[in-house]
Amino acid sequence: MLTLVAAAALAATDLKPVYAEITKRHAESIARLQKWIALPTIAAEGLNAEEGVTRMIELLKEAGFPSAERLGTDGKPGVFAAWDVGAKRTVGLYFMLDVKQFDSREWSSPPLEARLVDRPGVGKVMIGRGAENQKGPEAAFLAALHAIRGAGQKPPVNLVLVAEGEEEIGSPHFPQIVHQPEVEKALAKAALVVMPAASQGLDGAVDIPLGSKGVIEVELVSSGEKWGRGPSHDVHSANRARLDSPAFHLVQALATLVTPEGDPAIDGFADKTKRLSPAEEKMVDDAAKREKEADEKKQLGVARWAHDASWRDALAAIASKPTVNIEGLVAGYTGPGGKTVLPHRAVAKLDLRLVPDMTADGALGALKAHLQKRGFADIEVNMTGGYDPNMTAADSVLTRKALATYKQRGIDAHLLPRSGGSYPGYVFTNPPLSLPAGRFGLGHGDGAHAPDEYLLIESANPKLFGWDDSVKCYVDFLYAVAE
Amino acid sequence: MLTLVAAAALAATDLKPVYAEITKRHAESIARLQKWIALPTIAAEGLNAEEGVTRMIELLKEAGFPSAERLGTDGKPGVFAAWDVGAKRTVGLYFMLDVKQFDSREWSSPPLEARLVDRPGVGKVMIGRGAENQKGPEAAFLAALHAIRGAGQKPPVNLVLVAEGEEEIGSPHFPQIVHQPEVEKALAKAALVVMPAASQGLDGAVDIPLGSKGVIEVELVSSGEKWGRGPSHDVHSANRARLDSPAFHLVQALATLVTPEGDPAIDGFADKTKRLSPAEEKMVDDAAKREKEADEKKQLGVARWAHDASWRDALAAIASKPTVNIEGLVAGYTGPGGKTVLPHRAVAKLDLRLVPDMTADGALGALKAHLQKRGFADIEVNMTGGYDPNMTAADSVLTRKALATYKQRGIDAHLLPRSGGSYPGYVFTNPPLSLPAGRFGLGHGDGAHAPDEYLLIESANPKLFGWDDSVKCYVDFLYAVAE
Repeated sequence: MLTLVAAAALAATDLKPVYAEITKRHAESIARLQKWIALPTIAAEGLNAEEGVTRMIELLKEAGFPSAERLGTDGKPGVFAAWDVGAKRTVGLYFMLDVKQFDSREWSSPPLEARLVDRPGVGKVMIGRGAENQKGPEAAFLAALHAIRGAGQKPPVNLVLVAEGEEEIGSPHFPQIVHQPEVEKALAKAALVVMPAASQGLDGAVDIPLGSKGVIEVELVSSGEKWGRGPSHDVHSANRARLDSPAFHLVQALATLVTPEGDPAIDGFADKTKRLSPAEEKMVDDAAKREKEADEKKQLGVARWAHDASWRDALAAIASKPTVNIEGLVAGYTGPGGKTVLPHRAVAKLDLRLVPDMTADGALGALKAHLQKRGFADIEVNMTGGYDPNMTAADSVLTRKALATYKQRGIDAHLLPRSGGSYPGYVFTNPPLSLPAGRFGLGHGDGAHAPDEYLLIESANPKLFGWDDSVKCYVDFLYAVAE
Repeated sequence: MLTLVAAAALAATDLKPVYAEITKRHAESIARLQKWIALPTIAAEGLNAEEGVTRMIELLKEAGFPSAERLGTDGKPGVFAAWDVGAKRTVGLYFMLDVKQFDSREWSSPPLEARLVDRPGVGKVMIGRGAENQKGPEAAFLAALHAIRGAGQKPPVNLVLVAEGEEEIGSPHFPQIVHQPEVEKALAKAALVVMPAASQGLDGAVDIPLGSKGVIEVELVSSGEKWGRGPSHDVHSANRARLDSPAFHLVQALATLVTPEGDPAIDGFADKTKRLSPAEEKMVDDAAKREKEADEKKQLGVARWAHDASWRDALAAIASKPTVNIEGLVAGYTGPGGKTVLPHRAVAKLDLRLVPDMTADGALGALKAHLQKRGFADIEVNMTGGYDPNMTAADSVLTRKALATYKQRGIDAHLLPRSGGSYPGYVFTNPPLSLPAGRFGLGHGDGAHAPDEYLLIESANPKLFGWDDSVKCYVDFLYAVAE
């Protein structure tokens, strides 16, 4: 409890001028975020890779980082920045500068205009691509640094930041950033690595996942050219009587990847799946009591969970089950009505989520070997991105400081074994760095990867933190870690 | 041989002025076709349904039809036209006024400009959507009528014509046109129904299929909404651990529709498949000697036939095997790279080809019952079009007159049990009309349903008939039938 008391004391004494700066600089920091959202970096579309890096460097330097530099990779570039204030502790930061693809036609408000819109029961929200995932929380973190400087202070910890421009395509080159000698050396001094996040659900609750799943994203391509059967260009479907179908070949391959119930059936894929420990099972029990099944079902638009599982077991599945998912299917004629064509090529986009002790390399190898063994050796397996799962201990400095900071703000956060989503935390948690890593932050947003992504700015709900309060929370966290 | 001699005599005596008119009116008839191609009617896209009918009526009236009228259906409208010249015999005509969808970006010459382009080894061809399928041959037939009238004559037979605007979506409402009492009554007087066609392959050879396969086109739609499992809108794929996948559900359903070798496996679907008769087997033997396997393989871009069949058996398969084909697959994210989404909906576009004695209704029923029985009752089966197979006898007046007319022009056409493609000839060959029906015409084209569809206009190859010669052949045919 010493830490808590000390942090509360700090907040009571030194931080008032900083909090005042946050309020004073509200409009300025919102405008900064809006300007950032107007410049989308989208790796899958080759959009603004360099412009996004330049802007990221500007944003970091404006916030006080004395050094921030572009780092090239074999893919899109990233950024490395450091701010040594001579403090005892160093905080590592993970930023992504890219955002998910979007289709403006699906949005109620233009995704790059970041307009402030009233959302009943929530408050004034900013609608824009990246508002929640992750420009909004990242900009809130930077606003905390602006406020600290504005109050004539310096951050209570040293900062080391790495940012990538390929998070949304599975971070294929992020290790090249982190493992550059000067970057790795700087990060090795960190006590933890944190990713800013708007962690509150609609009910104000916060969970702390002790890691996240790994993932691989792959395209499976079946083609007449590679198969040596069927046509090598689209032909009239009258020929189907004498020609094999690359599209059915793909369908047959896909059907072998899951059981009749839809669970992974790739040979050897899930062999290293760790069962939840008794402590993790207890976290799930606790989460099942705290989180509301009806709300989740409504938000997802689902009538029942896979296997008709209970709410508790659905939460356990998120934490513990590897998955094989079809993100997309494309073959032949995709327009209105039909077209009597025999397509020469069919593509499935898959994501496979991994739990400890599975690895991305292992999953890819298992998938390839499975297809080979089942008569689908010709099907191309193009991995577009992916990485290992990661874990951070419940008693790590990150977890303890996060829990304490939330508590100080009146939030009783609960632990989860891991999140169902993925981020490349493994580069921090795996050797050689072996650091605790995870997300931190209050505030609320929704719609990551979907239309009308938003971040709450002015809360109309006493349980939800608006922009200024979420910025204050980053300040609190840095001072808590500093001790 | 009497018929042949008589036709030859006719050609020698009366037709010279008609042939002269064909040459004289060459530019005019080409321009007419080009203007027609500039106005595409595409049912799947709801494009120019009425404009196409109006143009068709203009074209028929210009060619001499005293009556030509729009006929409404529950879908797109068609046309009925008649020209009673008081002749002994009546020829029925089947026209389609729609064309296949196209994507201009895939064409080397704009698909609606119908430019004349030099094609090495072939001659001057017209590239345009509908050039071969079927505006080109239809316009050549109309050019024959223009020439007959231009020479001060009238057609040697009465003409009854039906045209539809939905051929490319499977002719769902064509029976409503043919079975209108006045239309059916007029068609009942016909000796045969003919569809103009550019029947020559690149080697100049012509086959006469004694019918064509039936077809049904269906969309299979798997959705969380209908299934009651998985999400009812696209959600983040992290949820895959606790949610069923409508896309995998579709894949699993599709996989049951074919054997591991890709042949139809729909319960009851092919029960009524008739084996080829000894006479039909002989036609296939004959065709295997006449047609060139290497040319076909090259054109289709294939290394081997399904089942590693011989050339002879590949031709037999076209004539005799029902098929299950995937025209297209669409689900979730279809853009570049990946997107970690769990799609709530997945669609497969299928075409199923039918041989005697299968029926469209029977095939649809079998497909639905199959899905129901296998646990896929929730998957929507939306039939967008289709019809029964059709057959015309080798000794029918149509087949005999066609063979004779070809022979008169030096072409030794060969019979095939049926074509692998489909057209709604069943409305003519089935009761109550029970007429012989099929295609007729010389000339050469290619690329139906594909980019750079073309029709040969000025032949540079002595084996291939250009525009004027193909028009002459329609004249010959009408006079041959007249006897």
